[in-house]
Amino acid sequence: MKFIDLRSDTVTHPTEEMRKAMCEAEVGDDVYEEDPTVKKLENMAAEILGKEAGLFVPSGTFGNQLSLFTHCNRGDEVILGDDCHIVQHEAGAASIIAGVQLRTIKSKRGILDPNEIEEKIRKEEDIHYPKTGLIALENAHSNGRVIPLENFSDIRSIADKYNIPIHLDGARIFNAATALNIDPIEIAKYADSISFCLSKGLCAPVGSVVVGSKEFINKAKKNRKIMGGGLRQAGILAAAGILALEKMRFRLSEDHENAKYLAEKLSNFDFIEIIENVDINMVFFKINKEFEEKEFISYMKNNGIKINPPEENVYRFVTHYWVKKEDIDKVINVMEKFFKE
Amino acid sequence: MKFIDLRSDTVTHPTEEMRKAMCEAEVGDDVYEEDPTVKKLENMAAEILGKEAGLFVPSGTFGNQLSLFTHCNRGDEVILGDDCHIVQHEAGAASIIAGVQLRTIKSKRGILDPNEIEEKIRKEEDIHYPKTGLIALENAHSNGRVIPLENFSDIRSIADKYNIPIHLDGARIFNAATALNIDPIEIAKYADSISFCLSKGLCAPVGSVVVGSKEFINKAKKNRKIMGGGLRQAGILAAAGILALEKMRFRLSEDHENAKYLAEKLSNFDFIEIIENVDINMVFFKINKEFEEKEFISYMKNNGIKINPPEENVYRFVTHYWVKKEDIDKVINVMEKFFKE
Amino acid sequence: MKFIDLRSDTVTHPTEEMRKAMCEAEVGDDVYEEDPTVKKLENMAAEILGKEAGLFVPSGTFGNQLSLFTHCNRGDEVILGDDCHIVQHEAGAASIIAGVQLRTIKSKRGILDPNEIEEKIRKEEDIHYPKTGLIALENAHSNGRVIPLENFSDIRSIADKYNIPIHLDGARIFNAATALNIDPIEIAKYADSISFCLSKGLCAPVGSVVVGSKEFINKAKKNRKIMGGGLRQAGILAAAGILALEKMRFRLSEDHENAKYLAEKLSNFDFIEIIENVDINMVFFKINKEFEEKEFISYMKNNGIKINPPEENVYRFVTHYWVKKEDIDKVINVMEKFFKE
Amino acid sequence: MKFIDLRSDTVTHPTEEMRKAMCEAEVGDDVYEEDPTVKKLENMAAEILGKEAGLFVPSGTFGNQLSLFTHCNRGDEVILGDDCHIVQHEAGAASIIAGVQLRTIKSKRGILDPNEIEEKIRKEEDIHYPKTGLIALENAHSNGRVIPLENFSDIRSIADKYNIPIHLDGARIFNAATALNIDPIEIAKYADSISFCLSKGLCAPVGSVVVGSKEFINKAKKNRKIMGGGLRQAGILAAAGILALEKMRFRLSEDHENAKYLAEKLSNFDFIEIIENVDINMVFFKINKEFEEKEFISYMKNNGIKINPPEENVYRFVTHYWVKKEDIDKVINVMEKFFKE
Repeated sequence: MKFIDLRSDTVTHPTEEMRKAMCEAEVGDDVYEEDPTVKKLENMAAEILGKEAGLFVPSGTFGNQLSLFTHCNRGDEVILGDDCHIVQHEAGAASIIAGVQLRTIKSKRGILDPNEIEEKIRKEEDIHYPKTGLIALENAHSNGRVIPLENFSDIRSIADKYNIPIHLDGARIFNAATALNIDPIEIAKYADSISFCLSKGLCAPVGSVVVGSKEFINKAKKNRKIMGGGLRQAGILAAAGILALEKMRFRLSEDHENAKYLAEKLSNFDFIEIIENVDINMVFFKINKEFEEKEFISYMKNNGIKINPPEENVYRFVTHYWVKKEDIDKVINVMEKFFKE
Repeated sequence: MKFIDLRSDTVTHPTEEMRKAMCEAEVGDDVYEEDPTVKKLENMAAEILGKEAGLFVPSGTFGNQLSLFTHCNRGDEVILGDDCHIVQHEAGAASIIAGVQLRTIKSKRGILDPNEIEEKIRKEEDIHYPKTGLIALENAHSNGRVIPLENFSDIRSIADKYNIPIHLDGARIFNAATALNIDPIEIAKYADSISFCLSKGLCAPVGSVVVGSKEFINKAKKNRKIMGGGLRQAGILAAAGILALEKMRFRLSEDHENAKYLAEKLSNFDFIEIIENVDINMVFFKINKEFEEKEFISYMKNNGIKINPPEENVYRFVTHYWVKKEDIDKVINVMEKFFKE
Repeated sequence: MKFIDLRSDTVTHPTEEMRKAMCEAEVGDDVYEEDPTVKKLENMAAEILGKEAGLFVPSGTFGNQLSLFTHCNRGDEVILGDDCHIVQHEAGAASIIAGVQLRTIKSKRGILDPNEIEEKIRKEEDIHYPKTGLIALENAHSNGRVIPLENFSDIRSIADKYNIPIHLDGARIFNAATALNIDPIEIAKYADSISFCLSKGLCAPVGSVVVGSKEFINKAKKNRKIMGGGLRQAGILAAAGILALEKMRFRLSEDHENAKYLAEKLSNFDFIEIIENVDINMVFFKINKEFEEKEFISYMKNNGIKINPPEENVYRFVTHYWVKKEDIDKVINVMEKFFKE
Repeated sequence: MKFIDLRSDTVTHPTEEMRKAMCEAEVGDDVYEEDPTVKKLENMAAEILGKEAGLFVPSGTFGNQLSLFTHCNRGDEVILGDDCHIVQHEAGAASIIAGVQLRTIKSKRGILDPNEIEEKIRKEEDIHYPKTGLIALENAHSNGRVIPLENFSDIRSIADKYNIPIHLDGARIFNAATALNIDPIEIAKYADSISFCLSKGLCAPVGSVVVGSKEFINKAKKNRKIMGGGLRQAGILAAAGILALEKMRFRLSEDHENAKYLAEKLSNFDFIEIIENVDINMVFFKINKEFEEKEFISYMKNNGIKINPPEENVYRFVTHYWVKKEDIDKVINVMEKFFKE
């Protein structure tokens, strides 16, 4: 059975064109820096985001953790929102690999108060203080929200005032750029390094890219080796990544429109409450009605629709390349049947 | 020149009686567990705080970091207030020695919202989640505040619900007990481990004690060795510590009264604004007047009074054994002269 | 220009059949454990090596470091040879990710003296001792040598005596099995975990597999996430890995024969000294003659042959799928010309 | 009962003069750098060993680990002998605090082969290599042996060739200087940092000192804070340390002579085999006779003599300030009685 999979955009499998490109990719040993396809992807990524250099890495978590590890010395402090992916969903890696001290601040749905960031920065050298080594941001946020650039601009000013680098977890930076209708470079310019995913909405099967200054990427290359991310003929994967950047990032608006369409349809259920605006390809909602959660999920599955259980009573449905508008109609249809019963 | 030193209670030097006790202490090699004076101190500390066992350590930071290291596995998450000593003044050690991920939450002058703690606890095992390994509290807080026990009780309930241990940074637990007019065991009972200082208000020259279950202290003993805190004839220091517990902790009310007296006198300056109630031996205040900060500090010093520069415009004056009531009169006197000029 | 690349077997690019398999691979989101091709590969690997479970990882270094991280607690001691890959070529990762203390012992060309291992094991609990957490072996060794199984058997007895697990860096375990003319399970049985590479001689573009007990692999799955190695549609890569195991491992004898043929031809130069027997696909030799090293390397390159500079005066030529017997004749031919001049 | 304690020189308790000095010590808050007695000790230590600055630390293990932590970046490699204290008896701390990779080489009773050190040094930058961050030596060795300075000189040449710092674990450097009959500066000059103990043979109750360049000590001061070793009125301990340096180090020859006397007497037992020369205050020997080890130890204890059980059949008897020549006669006497029975 072919499922409509609304659990995440991480479930996207590669397109036919990507498969063909992978099949035909010119490759070399990337540890010897001889894989032309990897090089092409890294350069393309750097150029698109206005940085000097790029580095292919196995995953989004890898890209974020490698960036923390490369920006900071062990024991440095990293200021970041308490609901960001690095804090929430990277298994505590920051305390193991980079060995940094997280200084989480209350995120208002992804937005960090610049004043609170400034407050947390260690302004003087003192034997009792760690050094503030990094500020880490996220856009689009894994909570589905696009962070307005005024907020980034304010934070950048503070970072500059104290000479602290910024890392951007841009796993879905192209969703953010699409939603804001701007060149992604306009987001990337506020950060010293960005990690973004080729999988998720962009459909490549495996891989992320970190971009930054030449010096940063050079240092990251050794750290990638330490973390076990030095790959050999990675051009196979990079070939899909190149298509992700050349083509797939330009069709994300379609996913966003489908998400809006889905939200609209869901809001027709009088017991469903949509949480927040739909900024990108994610719809968050509550079902204010008594029903058996597990039954709902398995009913959907039996009808060809995969969804995740809610987190703190909030459901998240995610659209992507493999979810078409008519699939959404089917989803609504099945839900209507379930809740009628 | 003998100074009136208001910078901190860490400046307290030992009393004559302590010096005599140190001079005459019976000692042995504590790595062989043969120092009777250390053993006596450890047992006394455990008993006073209602725990099974105690362990002598070189400093308050050592005691806290040893406790994190012993409660947690590397990569675990520790929930704690964003203004506590472990976060603010321990040089990032938690990311180096214990290797844990701090999950700081907004502290309202030392008080943590139990609901926010509950929110941050990792309730399920998930490949993306670190384990919540510890909640860390502080009382009296290094901001001078005594945390009400209702707050501790609420947090303990949550900790129990999820089976998470609590560590208490009780550097000044006897100040807190004094201020609350209760047996310190009434504070300690909410925590699985407590670290407290023999120096500071208690006047011993060096050392802190960690107390907890036998199992915990046994594990901590090896970790203390790893951290380089296995001492030899530590009975010399323990001898002063015993007096700290036998005598000095019962006179802290005097310091608190002196602090209140100082606050009262300070509030007579119409441009001085006392920040918060005086709970223990610390007075925090702002000087709402134009003047040369550095001149003020050196004027005080030239008149025999040591004070610290303000942090974010707030001055902190600390009373202790070596500051008598008449010293406070002198402080006020000198300040009057300075601000008259 | 198509090069004859003798630098390493890591330079092997995938075969046409592999490319086709990758192109057509059935995939899913492996973080959701839904990639059927990854599952097939992991099961196949486990079965071939006689273990309960397998785990796909991005590289050989990743597999080794993940195994150290999973077997050991931080601060544990790992006994291993001073010339093994983990010590020599993994960038110090063991001190960062697993946080273990290496206890290197003199390797006699890859062979470790069981008595010396026994000597180094911490036999008692003592506050001054780390725990011996692991013994790490390597076969075939990255020095080209196949370690005789008697040595492994002796070491296993000692490990069992003290109840210490063994990890085998089996990056080239199939070369070892081929050289020994035995089932690889006969090597794997001495180890609790094995990491082996799908790339190198087996020609897959990217990836390694770690095998071990179900419990071990389960724990490793979370640690893989921490290290950033949780991939999405990794079935693309696994598809090539399956062919590596189904087919490519059975043709390694060809590479070994070519290496022997190369050694024989090289030994015809009277100034060339072959170092040791040729066990697998590597020939080590010295050139006892005055000549310009850099000129030699670039002369070879200009004639279509890539070689690495010598390490401590020893050259290493490596054969693999993409080096045919006639290529070796060409290599000898070009060398003859160079040294005649 | 007053015991003759031959287990170690760590059992030495302070002399009356030390107790008096501690009682009367002028102290201050050393975290504010205001303890005059600590400063005096640190300067004295630096001067005696010909370095720019010194730092008081709680223990010998602390001093060594602080030095590794301060010389190295995490992931660096440290070359050292496989039987040195840092490897053998510091509980794996190097992998936790400094986070370095140990590269142990075979020690020939404390002597390291300079060629083997050179072999292990990472001579080039390579993405696969950690950096060699430090060479660590020990003199006198904890095996009782004094290392000849020719060996140090050879190692220093190699260290200089590759620009690698040397740390000396000089826990018993004054025993070594006494045995070699030279100024300790003649040993210290081969090292960039030295850690030595005030306790052990020098009789102070607690504490060690690390000496090195001003820059090194400055960096170490922050790291000491991270490790929890920032003490307050440490002048109490420093006062004993000053006497250790002013007086006690000049009487170590007495302990050495007593050890030689003990060895001579022991060798009169025809079943006792002295292991090696007696260089300092330690006698190592085997008892080639059938007897009940535990009975022997308890017989000795019942007769007022404390000894440790043997390690790998070798007994170690240690002389020190509190063991007089007539005590040795008593020891021999008691042993005669035991072995006659």
